[in-house]
Amino acid sequence: MIVAKIQWKGGTLLSPLPAVLVTCGEGENANVLTVAWTGILSSDPPRMYISVRKERHSHGIIANTREFCVNLTTRELARAADLCGVKSGRDGDKFALAGITKAPSFAVKCPSVAESPLTLECRVFDIVESGSHDIFTADIVAVSCEESLIDANGRLMLEKAGLIAYAHGEYFTLGERLGGFGFSVRKKAKK
Amino acid sequence: MIVAKIQWKGGTLLSPLPAVLVTCGEGENANVLTVAWTGILSSDPPRMYISVRKERHSHGIIANTREFCVNLTTRELARAADLCGVKSGRDGDKFALAGITKAPSFAVKCPSVAESPLTLECRVFDIVESGSHDIFTADIVAVSCEESLIDANGRLMLEKAGLIAYAHGEYFTLGERLGGFGFSVRKKAKK
Repeated sequence: MIVAKIQWKGGTLLSPLPAVLVTCGEGENANVLTVAWTGILSSDPPRMYISVRKERHSHGIIANTREFCVNLTTRELARAADLCGVKSGRDGDKFALAGITKAPSFAVKCPSVAESPLTLECRVFDIVESGSHDIFTADIVAVSCEESLIDANGRLMLEKAGLIAYAHGEYFTLGERLGGFGFSVRKKAKK
Repeated sequence: MIVAKIQWKGGTLLSPLPAVLVTCGEGENANVLTVAWTGILSSDPPRMYISVRKERHSHGIIANTREFCVNLTTRELARAADLCGVKSGRDGDKFALAGITKAPSFAVKCPSVAESPLTLECRVFDIVESGSHDIFTADIVAVSCEESLIDANGRLMLEKAGLIAYAHGEYFTLGERLGGFGFSVRKKAKK
């Protein structure tokens, strides 16, 4: 199949991406912001990153405390995720504004989002400058998960969490399940 | 709302993620592999990364040529994406195996995937070790896009591409559109 293509200069069109609620700080200085520039860096040790603009309120908090939590977002959290991406913590308590609740984390001092089905608790190991953004690379030191998402065999049923994705400026639910990792090989073996 | 949570040690449970076809190499040495450990690092300059295990066939190719392309995946490319994540280029021509076509790229020597709706062409600027994976950080030097996804006003209609997401070992279509960036604020302003 030959498809006509057009060319642009470089741009940040990777899609879909997660749109996660990142929590940081402590007590009255706790804050939450939404980040799509995030990803896993390595499996062993489990490491991830978030990229945050230098001018964002949370930038200084994370640079000082060197801790943050990445809270996965769902259909129910879509409005909060959007709001925490638009508003600044300098304008007031974004937890209250977004209608989300601070919950204690297990391994870090900054709060988690109680309403999030799954939280990755992170400790920064490096801050790398990259133009508009600073890249906070971090060890994932603990994961917390809604108990109701664990089945009787201890398996995580993340497909029941109602996760959302961010693609080209829009939020989407996840739709039809197309197959599990390795499905292409398993189908072939059956023939 | 107070939800019971359980705690695990750190793990790579960020979801959903893209599952992109990464192309690299030239001519007969061209290869393609699937990567979910990827993300945008900064907007200006536009930079992204892919994390690749040292033992993968493509690792040496990208380390040598310092170029790769990130091809977004769709429902039609789900089987190819899965196959190129499971099989190694050492076992034969994965383009043929996965039924995908090499197309010339605009700014780099490695091929793009003709069937992909959108390709980010990347030039490596650093390789950072992180345990199991090496992180290839790169400038996005060009983007190519299917002409049919551009409307009469030049707007990219990426929502028509049928992109897929990867979440906890499963591939999903994107489902219902919940709103565009800023929808939480716009709705509030109407009241």
